[in-house]
Amino acid sequence: MEATIEKRLGLKELASKVMSADEAAKLISDGDVVGMSGFTRAGDAKVVPMALADRAKNEDIKIDVYTGASLGPEVDNYLAAAGGIRKRGPFIGDRGIRTLINSGDVLYADMHLSHNAEQYRQGIFGKVNYAIIEAVAITEDGLLIPTTSVGNSPIICETAENIIIELNITHPESLIGIHDIYVPGEQGQREPIPMTDATQRLGSIGIKIDPSKVKAIVISEEPDAPSLIVPPDEETQTMANYLLDFFRDEIKAGRLTNELMPLQSGVGSVANAVLDGFADAEFENLVVASEVLQDAVFNLIDAGKVRFAAATSITLTEELQERVYSNLEKYADKITLRPQEISNHPELIRRLGLISINTALEADIYGNVNSTHVSGSKMMNGIGGSGDFARNARLGIFVTKSYAKGGAVSSIVPMVTHVDHTEHDVDVIVTEQGVADLRGLAPKERVPLIIENCVHPDFKEQLWEYYNAAVEKYGNVQTPHILSRAFEMYENLEKTGSMKKQ
Amino acid sequence: MEATIEKRLGLKELASKVMSADEAAKLISDGDVVGMSGFTRAGDAKVVPMALADRAKNEDIKIDVYTGASLGPEVDNYLAAAGGIRKRGPFIGDRGIRTLINSGDVLYADMHLSHNAEQYRQGIFGKVNYAIIEAVAITEDGLLIPTTSVGNSPIICETAENIIIELNITHPESLIGIHDIYVPGEQGQREPIPMTDATQRLGSIGIKIDPSKVKAIVISEEPDAPSLIVPPDEETQTMANYLLDFFRDEIKAGRLTNELMPLQSGVGSVANAVLDGFADAEFENLVVASEVLQDAVFNLIDAGKVRFAAATSITLTEELQERVYSNLEKYADKITLRPQEISNHPELIRRLGLISINTALEADIYGNVNSTHVSGSKMMNGIGGSGDFARNARLGIFVTKSYAKGGAVSSIVPMVTHVDHTEHDVDVIVTEQGVADLRGLAPKERVPLIIENCVHPDFKEQLWEYYNAAVEKYGNVQTPHILSRAFEMYENLEKTGSMKKQ
Repeated sequence: MEATIEKRLGLKELASKVMSADEAAKLISDGDVVGMSGFTRAGDAKVVPMALADRAKNEDIKIDVYTGASLGPEVDNYLAAAGGIRKRGPFIGDRGIRTLINSGDVLYADMHLSHNAEQYRQGIFGKVNYAIIEAVAITEDGLLIPTTSVGNSPIICETAENIIIELNITHPESLIGIHDIYVPGEQGQREPIPMTDATQRLGSIGIKIDPSKVKAIVISEEPDAPSLIVPPDEETQTMANYLLDFFRDEIKAGRLTNELMPLQSGVGSVANAVLDGFADAEFENLVVASEVLQDAVFNLIDAGKVRFAAATSITLTEELQERVYSNLEKYADKITLRPQEISNHPELIRRLGLISINTALEADIYGNVNSTHVSGSKMMNGIGGSGDFARNARLGIFVTKSYAKGGAVSSIVPMVTHVDHTEHDVDVIVTEQGVADLRGLAPKERVPLIIENCVHPDFKEQLWEYYNAAVEKYGNVQTPHILSRAFEMYENLEKTGSMKKQ
Repeated sequence: MEATIEKRLGLKELASKVMSADEAAKLISDGDVVGMSGFTRAGDAKVVPMALADRAKNEDIKIDVYTGASLGPEVDNYLAAAGGIRKRGPFIGDRGIRTLINSGDVLYADMHLSHNAEQYRQGIFGKVNYAIIEAVAITEDGLLIPTTSVGNSPIICETAENIIIELNITHPESLIGIHDIYVPGEQGQREPIPMTDATQRLGSIGIKIDPSKVKAIVISEEPDAPSLIVPPDEETQTMANYLLDFFRDEIKAGRLTNELMPLQSGVGSVANAVLDGFADAEFENLVVASEVLQDAVFNLIDAGKVRFAAATSITLTEELQERVYSNLEKYADKITLRPQEISNHPELIRRLGLISINTALEADIYGNVNSTHVSGSKMMNGIGGSGDFARNARLGIFVTKSYAKGGAVSSIVPMVTHVDHTEHDVDVIVTEQGVADLRGLAPKERVPLIIENCVHPDFKEQLWEYYNAAVEKYGNVQTPHILSRAFEMYENLEKTGSMKKQ
């Protein structure tokens, strides 16, 4: 272990900063704003947050935590449960912190993930007192090499006053060279991002840090918490097949080739399962340009379907973690991890013409999508990068099963209770019932497509009845709605446990 | 006149295509998809659409019309009223077509204006049979010089099968050289847009057209319909003052300098009036990078406050039209007109760090903004470029008076009835009551700022009562809402003519 540390800690002047997690955690003060590494449970600091959680159990210490995206249990479960978090952003996924957000114990700011770097630059979160960043190594020339995610770590290291590094010796050394760190300058003074192909490298293998900011180095052996996605099922397979057929039609129409365009696939089980569907399809030489590489991407690389995959994090189930991290050399020239400012940058999403596939919590008959709120009030996860991608993609596709709660809930409703993706942003909706291609359509043209192609048969009649009643009452207006009835399916749900009409 | 035409029609091989508006209008067939020039009543074709309107009165001819943005009365009033339009996009503003959209006689697809060029490239609107484009000249080397707007004309000329040119000899020749036409290539094969400063020129002075596509040249002497904006009043002046004070605070915080950042200001009276407020302020060397240059911008150039202004159209009141177009030489090195794909491009908005000021129809207590729909159903104008700008701007600001209909309607409500700009996109809300700076805040942190700073005193108590009842009923969740009451202010309005609680 000593030899490993010796080797991983190339910048020798930092050797004196090595200390225990407890000692490092003592550097943090109540009220601090802390920027942390980590994106979708990957590459997050673990042992210092756990030490902080222990402190928070016994003393009044609450901090603001801004990260790349969702973290593993150390922060988003234990530190949160210990009362150590006042405010959290820009994305969460853990059930622990979700509960505390919805009980009002933790404030949560839900933000587009490509916007954070600008927010750090402008000091929107306040002065960042500490960065806590997981690294696989610190090179002789002062490059911090991130682990399984890059996220916002470069801009956090740049803007934070102090840096605590968790040097994680469990992550394989073969991660060195995987990352591609490019950070745009100030707005109004920056150059175009020089990427014209998603497989290009733009920057360096690590984050250039100011060694004088480093106040602690803590050795960690904690692995990333594995991804919690559930395996594909019959319905996600059906959705994947509908999507593949849609792509085949696009090829026939001359809008895509057999290599498609760079693919982005959102965080979570459904998006992963849909991507899995490519394994048996005829598309080849695929490129993935996403925010997270989940199991499906590595399966597709292994199957020779995907020739290159870029993202800002790698989030794998336990099984895939073992397979990938012990064979990382095999993937070294096929994957790269970029800052989320780059992976999610509107400039690149538009230029490269991405196909974006994200999960909807619910959609409405006019094509608005809710990704975040249950019944308009309770936070589920957050918008994440779905808005960055859907707004600027060549094709903005949303996938969802047509029903939830064993059939009591329809995922298509008259009016969504929270809008994360407006009718102007949603190109295609896919459920296990079928596909609705909404491009170029007026709201009233979308209604029959969405109801007939995407809604579960149990709810079709109910949605038609609402739409027809709205047209009857207010005429054939742009977007017929009866406001007093727009949410009646939720009122049914609250009263009876089912959205169905009684 | 003959001499003028001779001079303006440089490409002599097209002289044989000169014909009357009636003859040109006969080229169009029922069911055609027609792309037209024009953006916010500027630079639109006029005489051919009027001839088409005459035809539509007497025969069954309906076309789909896709433009830059809203057009003058020839298309959006007369042709529409004659039943000549089946479907319209991507933006409207005329009361005539608005009524027909809301009666179901015209279909309307409301789209982000920066997205249209990609939609043309992909053929989303179907095969474009005809382009009808207003020009001030056609040069010897085949460049079509647009008039007072560029809009989508370059991509329409590129993708349309046939082109009809309205050569408008009333527009001054001094427009030649004002335009800067740069068109990105196909997605996945294009270069970065090489603009790092909003005052840069990237392209040519006109649109390169394929002469063999030109099927008609029609001489026109019709001026642009003047802009219909109303002058600033005491309340818009108050809003401007609040905004200027907000900028002063940003300078104190080190986030802006006295030159601010490139300014975008939306279409319409309120945004124009707010911009007018800069005339007496201390900010200098301002740059405007917008989609439309309204009266205020020219007043600010004249006052020496604005050093350069770029947009995709010039839309002026009658008074300013006279002043500007008879002295255009004076502005030649201070303004430029670009394709809307460039003026509204997310790549440039983010890189240049724009300050974006757009008008809200209504906002809610959590910061979502409705720009398009009255009571969730009736189209007002359309989203236009507001989404392109607000999403990607350094500062996304929305302005609205706090009330409408003489005080019967509050512009701030518990839940907006249509979301065009999500809570993730709205940085700042300004009314004549004050400013709410929402950056980095959780929804519940936004509520007191919006209610206390922006809501009209007549409605504050009512909004607090709603919020408190929601917290009471469902607890301190992420975004407290009572769905059965979320729209009760509209129900009051429908029943009593006022949103106020009875």
